[in-house]
Order: sequence, then C-alpha cells, then structure tokens
Amino acid sequence: MNIKLIVIGKLKEKYLRDGCDEYIKRLSKFCNLKVIELDEYRLPDKPSQKDIDNALSSEAKNILKYCEGYIVSMCIEGNQISSEDLATKFESIALNGYGTITFIIGSSFGLDSTIKSQSNFKLSMSKMTFTHQIARMLLLEQIYRAFQINNNGKYHK
Amino acid sequence: MNIKLIVIGKLKEKYLRDGCDEYIKRLSKFCNLKVIELDEYRLPDKPSQKDIDNALSSEAKNILKYCEGYIVSMCIEGNQISSEDLATKFESIALNGYGTITFIIGSSFGLDSTIKSQSNFKLSMSKMTFTHQIARMLLLEQIYRAFQINNNGKYHK
Repeated sequence: MNIKLIVIGKLKEKYLRDGCDEYIKRLSKFCNLKVIELDEYRLPDKPSQKDIDNALSSEAKNILKYCEGYIVSMCIEGNQISSEDLATKFESIALNGYGTITFIIGSSFGLDSTIKSQSNFKLSMSKMTFTHQIARMLLLEQIYRAFQINNNGKYHK
Repeated sequence: MNIKLIVIGKLKEKYLRDGCDEYIKRLSKFCNLKVIELDEYRLPDKPSQKDIDNALSSEAKNILKYCEGYIVSMCIEGNQISSEDLATKFESIALNGYGTITFIIGSSFGLDSTIKSQSNFKLSMSKMTFTHQIARMLLLEQIYRAFQINNNGKYHK
C-alpha cells in the first residue's frame, strides 16, 4: 500500500518534527509513505476573507497536482471514525483496487472547498481544533495504528 | 484559576516531554498549573482482565487523593465538545465558584469506573484512540487554547 500525505507548510516545532519522524520511521515497515510538504501561501498580518480565499485556492491548485488514488481530506466538519474503523477502511480501500491513499491536511485556514468536494472521504479527528501541525503527527500515529490493527500488532492492544 | 492535571506514568518519548513542556510554559501566564504524575501499576506481559481491574483500582485510590474542585475524567466514551465550548466551560466552572479544575488521564487501560462516576464531566477528545501519552500533550494544548479563546488571544484566530 502507498500512503501519500500532502501537507501545507513546514513543521516549526522541533518536538513535532521528531514525533512525525518517529512515526514515519515506524510506518516504513508497513507501507510506502511519501510526505509532500507544499508551500504555505503568504498572507498579510490581518488577512481579509478574500486574502484567505485566494490563499486556499492557490494552495488547492498545488495540492491537486499531487492527489492520487483514494483521497481523504482532513477537516473538522468531516466524519469521525474510530481507529478500528479507519483500519477497516484501509482494507476496503485496498479491496476496491486503490494502490494509494492520499491524505491532505491544509494550512491553519483549512482546505479549499474544491479539495473537499473532490475527495472520496472527509475525515475529522476531533470536534476540537488542533493546530494543523499537531494534526500531522496525530494522523501519522493513526495511520500507524491502523496498520498495527490490521497486522494484529501489539501497539493497539 | 488553578488547573491540576493528574496523569499515570512518565512520558517515555522526548518529543512528547518537549511538547508538554512548551504548553506548560505557555500556560504559566494564564493559570497556576500543577502536573501530578503518578506511578503506573506494574502489569505482567499478558495481563488478565483481573490484573487490569486491580491495576485500575489501585491507580484510582492514588488518583482520588489528589482530586480537587471540578473533576474532568478523560475517556473515549465521554462527551466531545469543541475548543470554544471548552473555553466557555472554563468560565462557567469559575462562575460556579470552583477555584480548581482537575483533569485526569489514566494509563493505557484507561480509568477505573469509580473515578469516572465521581467526576463532574467526562471528556473525550476523539473517537480515535490516541496513546495516553499523546493525550497529555493534546489536552495541555486544548487547555492553553481555552485560555487564549477566553482572553481573545491570537492563538485561536
């Protein structure tokens, strides 16, 4: 299985880079993982709604170039599923012939509606707002957990 | 406002200790925060349900010694609320005369039912299972975010 993670912006905090690196390393046993870090559109200090819309639209054009296979957009209004259901979803996606799952995490302003509407699934990890940087580590942990569940690993027991 | 965070076990990963330390430092501007790290009960490699129940019960007795004020148990089956609602909850707890909010995160096996039943609120951050170690960082971030929301800070904008 190929997993692609498209994210906007660099991780600013060392502890999050270290956390992500740890799960990226662990995931290498289970899948071919690519993390594609795209540039964040630069916004003025107090951006208007139009500034934000332009940024999201510009980021979306860039994101679409890298989308492939089964597309999962991360957004707070998406569907919440348990870790076990995410693991089952991985299996059914593979059974449906997809070789790649692409997860997309937007910037702090989220994702453009074109990305959401072109996704196969909208996934929310929580009703709470996390920084998109923390979301990256959480998602990597959930992907690792899904593989552990499907491989009957100790991690989820 | 006093915030007490009762947790079971030490943080094994440096990146999580660094992440928690960052939010503990930031929170010092907003509240008097105490993190109370209690010993995890030692379990055999393949614990029976009875072993787990004994561990939770023993951890619970220890936890109860430190509980104070308004008690929030973290558990996956608890209520999910948004970050904004958590912020509002902080204000209403204070208005109700509580000087302290105690949050409790159990071990990887969770919390004993006596703790849950004696809590004022059961809070879930996600349908997904996170390690209790990651949950500690996430909760500290949400507490910081709640204070930022209530103080009209930039962090949540």
